[in-house]
Amino acid sequence: MYSSLWLNYEKLYISDENERKVADILKNVCFISCDENNRIFKSIKNEIKTAFDILFDRETTFVTGEDASKALLIKKVTNEKLGKEGYRIYSTENAFFVEANDYNGLLYGTFRFIELIRLGKLTEEVNIIKIPDNPLRMLNHWDNMTGDIERGYSGNSFFFEDNKMIINDRTLMYARAVSSVGINAVVINNVNVKGEASYLISDRHYENMKKLSEIFADYGIRLFVSANYALPMEYGIDSADPLDERVIKWWSDKCKEIYDNLPLLGGFLVKADSEGRPGPFTYGRTQADGANMLARAIAPYGGLIIWRCFVYNCKQDWRDEKTDRARAGYDYFHDLDGKFEENVVLQIKNGPMDFQVREPVSPLFGGLENTNQMLEVQIAQEYTGQQKHVCYLIPWFKEILTFNTHMKEASVADIISGRVMGNKNAGMAAVCNTGNDYNWTGHDLAGANLYGFGRLSFDTLLSAEDIAKEWAMLYLAQALGEKSFEERNGKKIVDTITDILMKSWPAYEKYNAPLGIGWMVVPGIHYGPDVDGYEYSPWGTYHKADLHAIGRDRTEAGTGFTSQYRKENADMYASVKTCPEELLLFFHRLPYNYVLKNGKTIIQHIYDTHFEGAAEAEDMFESFKSLKGLIADDVYERAASRFEHQTEHAKEWRDVINSYFFRKTGIKDEKGRPLF
Amino acid sequence: MYSSLWLNYEKLYISDENERKVADILKNVCFISCDENNRIFKSIKNEIKTAFDILFDRETTFVTGEDASKALLIKKVTNEKLGKEGYRIYSTENAFFVEANDYNGLLYGTFRFIELIRLGKLTEEVNIIKIPDNPLRMLNHWDNMTGDIERGYSGNSFFFEDNKMIINDRTLMYARAVSSVGINAVVINNVNVKGEASYLISDRHYENMKKLSEIFADYGIRLFVSANYALPMEYGIDSADPLDERVIKWWSDKCKEIYDNLPLLGGFLVKADSEGRPGPFTYGRTQADGANMLARAIAPYGGLIIWRCFVYNCKQDWRDEKTDRARAGYDYFHDLDGKFEENVVLQIKNGPMDFQVREPVSPLFGGLENTNQMLEVQIAQEYTGQQKHVCYLIPWFKEILTFNTHMKEASVADIISGRVMGNKNAGMAAVCNTGNDYNWTGHDLAGANLYGFGRLSFDTLLSAEDIAKEWAMLYLAQALGEKSFEERNGKKIVDTITDILMKSWPAYEKYNAPLGIGWMVVPGIHYGPDVDGYEYSPWGTYHKADLHAIGRDRTEAGTGFTSQYRKENADMYASVKTCPEELLLFFHRLPYNYVLKNGKTIIQHIYDTHFEGAAEAEDMFESFKSLKGLIADDVYERAASRFEHQTEHAKEWRDVINSYFFRKTGIKDEKGRPLF
Repeated sequence: MYSSLWLNYEKLYISDENERKVADILKNVCFISCDENNRIFKSIKNEIKTAFDILFDRETTFVTGEDASKALLIKKVTNEKLGKEGYRIYSTENAFFVEANDYNGLLYGTFRFIELIRLGKLTEEVNIIKIPDNPLRMLNHWDNMTGDIERGYSGNSFFFEDNKMIINDRTLMYARAVSSVGINAVVINNVNVKGEASYLISDRHYENMKKLSEIFADYGIRLFVSANYALPMEYGIDSADPLDERVIKWWSDKCKEIYDNLPLLGGFLVKADSEGRPGPFTYGRTQADGANMLARAIAPYGGLIIWRCFVYNCKQDWRDEKTDRARAGYDYFHDLDGKFEENVVLQIKNGPMDFQVREPVSPLFGGLENTNQMLEVQIAQEYTGQQKHVCYLIPWFKEILTFNTHMKEASVADIISGRVMGNKNAGMAAVCNTGNDYNWTGHDLAGANLYGFGRLSFDTLLSAEDIAKEWAMLYLAQALGEKSFEERNGKKIVDTITDILMKSWPAYEKYNAPLGIGWMVVPGIHYGPDVDGYEYSPWGTYHKADLHAIGRDRTEAGTGFTSQYRKENADMYASVKTCPEELLLFFHRLPYNYVLKNGKTIIQHIYDTHFEGAAEAEDMFESFKSLKGLIADDVYERAASRFEHQTEHAKEWRDVINSYFFRKTGIKDEKGRPLF
Repeated sequence: MYSSLWLNYEKLYISDENERKVADILKNVCFISCDENNRIFKSIKNEIKTAFDILFDRETTFVTGEDASKALLIKKVTNEKLGKEGYRIYSTENAFFVEANDYNGLLYGTFRFIELIRLGKLTEEVNIIKIPDNPLRMLNHWDNMTGDIERGYSGNSFFFEDNKMIINDRTLMYARAVSSVGINAVVINNVNVKGEASYLISDRHYENMKKLSEIFADYGIRLFVSANYALPMEYGIDSADPLDERVIKWWSDKCKEIYDNLPLLGGFLVKADSEGRPGPFTYGRTQADGANMLARAIAPYGGLIIWRCFVYNCKQDWRDEKTDRARAGYDYFHDLDGKFEENVVLQIKNGPMDFQVREPVSPLFGGLENTNQMLEVQIAQEYTGQQKHVCYLIPWFKEILTFNTHMKEASVADIISGRVMGNKNAGMAAVCNTGNDYNWTGHDLAGANLYGFGRLSFDTLLSAEDIAKEWAMLYLAQALGEKSFEERNGKKIVDTITDILMKSWPAYEKYNAPLGIGWMVVPGIHYGPDVDGYEYSPWGTYHKADLHAIGRDRTEAGTGFTSQYRKENADMYASVKTCPEELLLFFHRLPYNYVLKNGKTIIQHIYDTHFEGAAEAEDMFESFKSLKGLIADDVYERAASRFEHQTEHAKEWRDVINSYFFRKTGIKDEKGRPLF
């Protein structure tokens, strides 16, 4: 059992003359210059039929011929302005058009067209041209073949169970849903490739992998696989040295075999030399040696190597003041700029640490001038409430995308889109938040992150708020059946949900670790407060709080991390005066009585934000309660039980963090609120 | 593959005329007044044959007739002085005697006789009478039927695998070994009864349980089982209310069925109303209601109910200053004194918390005047280094046993032996430290805790040092084959091992949490330092350290825990002047600059003990290294790798604890040693 996510087509309520006219036009659908045998074409036709038949509660007629009037015309064109995968939606007096240069564009245009109908936004004035900003719009599933999901908070895998692949009707639902928001690449297995997963690219699983790649391809999605860098060693070669001729030949032969069996495969995602994974370092080689060896082996088949930059020393001595994990990505990869094959893409986590609720942008963005790059974000809420807390992450991703790297004044979005370097292998990836729960994402409101990531990766200029509104509308508030938008309290639903979503990340940040310092979580599980949890551990994530001060000096006087940025940013971060305050303790060690720009001391800021954050969590729940009876009961009940937990857990965060600092500093809250 | 523990019989080195004479006498063994069909008799005979044939490298002759001279005479006698399970070993000019009133006594005497030979202590002057101090000398295995062991640090279970019972040659080795040190009762399954283990007392497992009970009975051991208090509910009764007639009848019928199938069963161990286990509290009944209901059901068959007193609220609010977990056992059980059936034994953990490296003795000892009691200790080193650190616990158990409760001036040993109340259902239990590792206990030196617990439970007056020496001798330093004790460097081995063992618990205590406060461990796994690990949690184990002070006031002015003791002890603990300093922070909240009797401040004491403890760990390793080549290589290699880890891990303890307090207090080490 699974929901249809935002594709929950139901009969529309037709509210006025204009909508009646639109419905009338859409009785007929006509394809122009399309090859009926194209696999994506078939999906487009299916989707239109499925959607229109339900939305308008009638049979849609497919007509032929360029002269069709009073119809939706889906037209393959040649129009440079629409680029690759782009589309145009527009109308004439009696017709609507979806045009694109390729079937992928037609598919995205079709999905968007259906959305516009459901959103009530289809008018005669419609005229939209959208070309995806990012060539690669990817989901990374951390699903293990045993069926569990690393950092999965919404059930088990729907790709794997008991070391076998699952292909069923849910697979199709998945492909439709993620394609509808623009996803065109999916890695189905955990980057930590364990056990049977090493053999996804072998005879054992080719048959099912092929089936899956075809289902994906029907929706414009390329199937990728996380590959085990040391795979040759599983086949009797005693090395995985990327310069060893035997290894080179093995991978070359292997890639031929793979593509003989899986011609639609997109390529490999590789986590090497990271957190215990094997890699080229074992043989004294660089990350480029490793990535390029694989890239050359896969190049003849058009495959890509997505190479993760999450390389750092996870066995650090916490007593060591000099080593700084934040530096690691840049230290390992910066000097390799320009040395990667054209079909290698470096996948760089948004920050230098690991998906904290707040981090600076990785200095690799702007540090690499001549290397394919992809931004990796995480919609699986590992550190942001694990889909028990609502935490809408799109506002955070927007901040990351618009960050000015000062490399040619390019933003992160400029770099990963390929606009700056003119490269085509670039884009965005998200560690996915789905599982086999009925609602796919554990918390129903976490669905907004899945929807939002897809939409944002396609169109990085969209606002987080608009995305939230559209998702709320499509998921919860459409005018349906016999009820108008007003009768359904649609505006209240959309406004309330959007308001909650927009407040959720700031609230979570408030009751989490203060001022960008991160990591005050229970080790291993990464849920719940534990201020010293990572303090005396080998993971390189220290706040060094004592009775006087907190934070790490990452300026030149300290670990020197700030110098990895372009001068403008390095200067900004290096000075306590210009460092954005939400990152103050990430870059600086400061006494608790340091006065922030708002006139508050750091300690009072900690108290205030934590009381505020917990109160905001409670407010969000109160606000959500007002939707009881307005939104579907099952959604309400599921989400309400999570809000209830979040409300209590936010108080736990508040009291643990505040009490920790009260006990350490002895400084009372100015407002006399309880500290323990 | 498994070792023979301290029963590793090998050919003895005969060093002098006396030993030659002894060997000569022992050519013949004669049984007097023994029933050859008795099951224990057979074990005695087997053990003698096995031992003597190997030790003397020849065939032993079993002769008959009271007139046998030049022989070992095993004689069942009637001698009130030897009591139940007691024995006498003595010699005449040409003969040795082992005498007892029962076969159990003969078995213990025989094992001890063999030990004396191996220890080189058998002379013509030998004259030993030993009657076990404690009627019940029990091991509690926390083995799950899945095969894993809760708090197991030496491999998986040798009783269970994949929800089936294991009975093989190792079972026999186990029975021989634990019987040889006096154990007469064994609970084979985890007190947290989960899954299949509920059905050990059912048709599913009767056949194997019976076999096991017989193997045990051959060695004087009664098989016990941890029972699921809510078992009737697994059989369709919708209640486990101890006063519900259906429940009473169900258990009554069940016990009949059980004993029809397992006539040798000793009874049940029950963990009720504890850490999520079901119990009488669910139905508003007392612990006595629950225990007595089971006791009446099992009484007709001579069975015992061992009822654990580990009942407390494990969902406490850490903000709550009033609730004190330490009080819970007494609060729940004190008023029930005298209200338990005669075949109920309360099993009381040594301290009021949970097997910390240092705790006061539970006030239930001395608080209960008219109730069967058993002392529960833990040789599984859950909080004491998990059999990676060497931590010989017998000195700690000695302190507990000799604690004066001031109830009729009785020590704990007086109470649990039955001497004070004249009761026969009493004794000692240890949570066991064994698993299916080759050496049974992970760390070879942890074998001394298994050996030592048995010996001590039989004879509570033995010194920890003597026990250590004998174990070291039997396990590592016997004079064997062609080499004398001197040639084997026996003295050096025994002295070194004994010295390490005797220093190990004090060293561990030094680098652990200071002054009796406990609980500074990683939650859940209970290994490694985490000062605040249990500080903001529901487990009721708080140190409340802030920048000024640490500890909890458990006097009348605080939680009132001290008042649970008899007046003399209550007064002693309530005053900072008379409170034993090793427990100071358990009972009192004190500033870091409080001056101890040795003139040191608490903070300096913390620094000093932690530097000392880590240095002592290193010293123990250095000392152990001197045995390389002297003791068996496999023992050396296994233990050395653990000592190496301990040495490093003790430094981690030192630095984490010291740095935590340095950061919190800002007070430097007087000696200027590094703090981080």
